[in-house]
Amino acid sequence: MTKLHLLLLGILTLATVAATAQTKPASPWSPELLQQLRHLHQAALEDDYAYGQAAHLTDNIGPRLTGSPQAAAAVEYVADELRKLGLRVTLEPVSVPHWVRGEEHAALVSYPGQVPGTQQKIVVTALASVDNATPAEGITAEIVVVNNFDELAAMPREQVAGKIVVFNEGFDHQMVAAGFGLAAYGQAVAYREDGREAAASKGAVAALVRSAGGAQFRLPHTGETGYDAKLPSIPAAAVTAEDAELMARLAAQGPVRLHLVLTPKLLPNVASYNVVADLKGTEHPEQVVIVSGHLDSWDLGTGAIDDAAGVAVSMETAQLLKQLHLQPKRTIRIVAWMAEETGIFGGKAYAKQHAGDVANHFAAIETD
Amino acid sequence: MTKLHLLLLGILTLATVAATAQTKPASPWSPELLQQLRHLHQAALEDDYAYGQAAHLTDNIGPRLTGSPQAAAAVEYVADELRKLGLRVTLEPVSVPHWVRGEEHAALVSYPGQVPGTQQKIVVTALASVDNATPAEGITAEIVVVNNFDELAAMPREQVAGKIVVFNEGFDHQMVAAGFGLAAYGQAVAYREDGREAAASKGAVAALVRSAGGAQFRLPHTGETGYDAKLPSIPAAAVTAEDAELMARLAAQGPVRLHLVLTPKLLPNVASYNVVADLKGTEHPEQVVIVSGHLDSWDLGTGAIDDAAGVAVSMETAQLLKQLHLQPKRTIRIVAWMAEETGIFGGKAYAKQHAGDVANHFAAIETD
Repeated sequence: MTKLHLLLLGILTLATVAATAQTKPASPWSPELLQQLRHLHQAALEDDYAYGQAAHLTDNIGPRLTGSPQAAAAVEYVADELRKLGLRVTLEPVSVPHWVRGEEHAALVSYPGQVPGTQQKIVVTALASVDNATPAEGITAEIVVVNNFDELAAMPREQVAGKIVVFNEGFDHQMVAAGFGLAAYGQAVAYREDGREAAASKGAVAALVRSAGGAQFRLPHTGETGYDAKLPSIPAAAVTAEDAELMARLAAQGPVRLHLVLTPKLLPNVASYNVVADLKGTEHPEQVVIVSGHLDSWDLGTGAIDDAAGVAVSMETAQLLKQLHLQPKRTIRIVAWMAEETGIFGGKAYAKQHAGDVANHFAAIETD
Repeated sequence: MTKLHLLLLGILTLATVAATAQTKPASPWSPELLQQLRHLHQAALEDDYAYGQAAHLTDNIGPRLTGSPQAAAAVEYVADELRKLGLRVTLEPVSVPHWVRGEEHAALVSYPGQVPGTQQKIVVTALASVDNATPAEGITAEIVVVNNFDELAAMPREQVAGKIVVFNEGFDHQMVAAGFGLAAYGQAVAYREDGREAAASKGAVAALVRSAGGAQFRLPHTGETGYDAKLPSIPAAAVTAEDAELMARLAAQGPVRLHLVLTPKLLPNVASYNVVADLKGTEHPEQVVIVSGHLDSWDLGTGAIDDAAGVAVSMETAQLLKQLHLQPKRTIRIVAWMAEETGIFGGKAYAKQHAGDVANHFAAIETD
């Protein structure tokens, strides 16, 4: 809650400064503005509206995967709450993928030193939002483990065709320690995004990608993966760091065969919405300051940090301005974006729908 | 590997001191002994035998749950390896529980604010080694969340009977920070051990226990749970810290119903073994110094730390003594204990089998 409030305070400060700045002010920090900021600060520290909104989105509504009933309920809920605050709410259409997770499990069924009659579980989770199901009974194939795209590229096609490619890309902990966590994540996540197509282009029957990130605990990380209509649509899943390492060690000793079951469904697109809620500006109502978070989440958790919190602090911005009867000079536009995780569909739809009005967008904040 | 070697060095030092101490030495630290210790130290740092043993037990054999084919294979493997080192190996019988994990899943099917047509997954893992299955189709009942045994004890029976008790005991992070991690774990794990019986005694239809420990990441921790023949044998499982908190928050808002499927099987006991391998002493062969770890593990991981490492460093003790041609004056007895996790059955069987010879046990070390 403290972190929520800190975030909120930052957003409010920025938003209020942006909304109340004069064209040619004697000083941008008028005594009146400073007083308003102090009030906002104090009110933000005392108010638990944002916490309550995040709690409802995550505890009661739950995971809000693009295209799901929960995502639709979240749209209605946030729109209603913002209407209650007196904002003018518009639901702006976004066509979103409707991918539904199915069964997902895997096991090593043959490997060096195997105890007869036993298998080893491999923890997997399917990648979205592509048509990446196996048959219901699964597939069984030998694995080929590579550390990076170059190793795969250097392999003759016959060494990969018919096999399951395991991308065991390392995660650069030193880069994280040096303060470049996002860059380290970016390097690793490239395999989740492009690994499926790289494997398919070599004739692989499936792609498994080591989960990007430093946290381990045998947790697989879901996410979106690439799609190329010119390539076969092969099953793709994330495996845990531990299981990727296990497969690499065993494959170095001899042939390893894996059984993989993934039964997600890629259904037709669904009509969904960005929730766009305006608190009209008094001097420049046509000028917009966006304060926003994204409403959809992945489905393996309840998306509290990513990104119910971002939506909740955006809603709190409106709540506090209303509570303190502050009237922004520009329009404060609270947006709860749809389908960020699955391809920023909400953001792209907004850009298209408001293409003629870009010049009136004074500032935009997204907390994610 | 560094940690393994450090552990190993400590064990070797203790074991060698114990094995070579004289009855009335001029000094226990003879130049010859000091030289031997230096050689052991250096050899331990250079040798990767222990790492190889731990790798085989975990990567190739895999999880070694009491009563499983993998546990049986591990007994044979370790016995063979110790025979290769020239030790006299005895397999000492231990009757062990044979509990086989089945399907395990749970979902909140009714709760305040629920989106129609949706459920919320609750991550569960069954507790062993009791007869704690639900029917194949599962059970569905309202939950009642308590923070501790006292809260449950204070409830009238009719408030608990027919429901699923969720023990949401807190984990004392401050106690851990103060250096009392094991005590904090002990406090929390009491609910895993005794929660099932406490719930059954109030007429509950199942017991769910928040996983003990400070690590979260929505991981459920398995373990053994209590059994009382006078009480109904109800299903029992661990839930994650996050899901325990979720259920507590929702139950505070209104009735919450949970669907629980657990299909483990408790089969008849299985004949298993402690692996007991002696390197005979030259002066006091009848006196024994035990150097040991436990061979069984839980089944959710491969039991590398708990306790393939303990077995491997014990084996390495024998390996290094052989490699350096050191002849202990007392008998060094390497033991790979069976069924520690499920009730210290191996330890108890050894105590019984060697009851007449206790006085000859000079020292015992277990690395776990």
